[in-house]
Amino acid sequence: MPEQAKVSPRAAFLIIGNEVLSGRTRDCNLPVLATALSQHGIRLAEVRVVRDDQAQIVAAVNELRANHTHLFTSGGIGPTHDDITTAAIAKAVGVVVYRHPKAEAELAQHYVASGRAATESRLRMANVPQGAELVRCEATPAPGFNIANIYVFAGVPKIFAAMVACVIPQLPAGPAYVSRTLTVRVGESEVATDLAQVQEQYPTLELGSYPQQDEQGYFVELVIAGADVSQIDAARTELGARLKKRNLDFAVS
Amino acid sequence: MPEQAKVSPRAAFLIIGNEVLSGRTRDCNLPVLATALSQHGIRLAEVRVVRDDQAQIVAAVNELRANHTHLFTSGGIGPTHDDITTAAIAKAVGVVVYRHPKAEAELAQHYVASGRAATESRLRMANVPQGAELVRCEATPAPGFNIANIYVFAGVPKIFAAMVACVIPQLPAGPAYVSRTLTVRVGESEVATDLAQVQEQYPTLELGSYPQQDEQGYFVELVIAGADVSQIDAARTELGARLKKRNLDFAVS
Repeated sequence: MPEQAKVSPRAAFLIIGNEVLSGRTRDCNLPVLATALSQHGIRLAEVRVVRDDQAQIVAAVNELRANHTHLFTSGGIGPTHDDITTAAIAKAVGVVVYRHPKAEAELAQHYVASGRAATESRLRMANVPQGAELVRCEATPAPGFNIANIYVFAGVPKIFAAMVACVIPQLPAGPAYVSRTLTVRVGESEVATDLAQVQEQYPTLELGSYPQQDEQGYFVELVIAGADVSQIDAARTELGARLKKRNLDFAVS
Repeated sequence: MPEQAKVSPRAAFLIIGNEVLSGRTRDCNLPVLATALSQHGIRLAEVRVVRDDQAQIVAAVNELRANHTHLFTSGGIGPTHDDITTAAIAKAVGVVVYRHPKAEAELAQHYVASGRAATESRLRMANVPQGAELVRCEATPAPGFNIANIYVFAGVPKIFAAMVACVIPQLPAGPAYVSRTLTVRVGESEVATDLAQVQEQYPTLELGSYPQQDEQGYFVELVIAGADVSQIDAARTELGARLKKRNLDFAVS
């Protein structure tokens, strides 16, 4: 079982791909990673999306890996010419790319078993930076990899999710991060003062206000989040009492 | 009519909010902005998501505004204590926050007209950095603002989209950026060599390969994108001829 860190480890996520920046493709991977990290007590502190451009990837990788406990990336490890993530990570870390013998053997075996040729394009997916560990999952024979504090995952949502499910539970966990939500059917300015006062009483918690709209009109989700459940419960009771006093109905979730 | 730039202006987008990083909320604004910018010939070059943390926001704003023609932000301009974007932008730009008289008058009028009190929490939404221009839209009486090359929009998707629709058409347009997609029902490694060779023939275009999966199995979208429609058509013809020669059916969109 992995050790538990005393303070929350911090993570960054780098999404690599022109298609997200052009609006052609909608990223689905961020919520998957964010939820998995929160549940494991790792704090996702920053996300960046960059183009398929080596200089831009290298700069982002080096800044993010220096400032965070872990860096996760998605995209750019497939078999085509626009898949440049592996080379960029190797350059950022200062090592060469080589063909991992075990990954190559597994890919070759997979293609032969499925009646297809193990072409150079396909075997290219066995290339990793020298010194990297493979990240394997059942969703694909093409591996992701880990080098230093960087975890490089595929961009295809199903494969990305499988790699997240494989890797995150193995990382040192932080204090579990939980939240409670009070939903009130008013505009958020109606509850701003109460919320600010409860935040002042509980400075170690994070109180947030998220205005929403549905067919019945405006409502707001008041979220109390943190690592200390008894503090969260106390803050929730206090905020609830203030809302009741003002005859505002709310639902807790 | 706005002038047309000779080279594509470059933009960055900064999403501000703990809720996106915790996985609680899924960002819907990036595809809206990305699509609007692409259609207007502005290249979205980078996106970042940061927490509601002044130091982190200020650092990201200063880096992104220096490196790009425009910087857009979403989130953190509401009436509650966790809305810290306005103060952070003012700090990044080096000016003070003040209450914009016209914005205050409009907000007060709105609340009085709807039978609600113009409380301090509500009027706080009239605060902007000194020297900012208001960004108004019909979706809300609370303005966004523009200062230097920074456009600060609300995070609520409906209001964000209204602000995008109001501001982007007024910016200098770049050469319109278009794309054509060939969809083939094979794994992407099957077409990697053809795609790379067509990319070599047309170095000014961007050829990308996006593997997908549906209930019928794997397929791949081959995207040819750029500003020169005649080059795109030529590359599409060349790639289509290569696919036909190999008896691969494809759809063009």
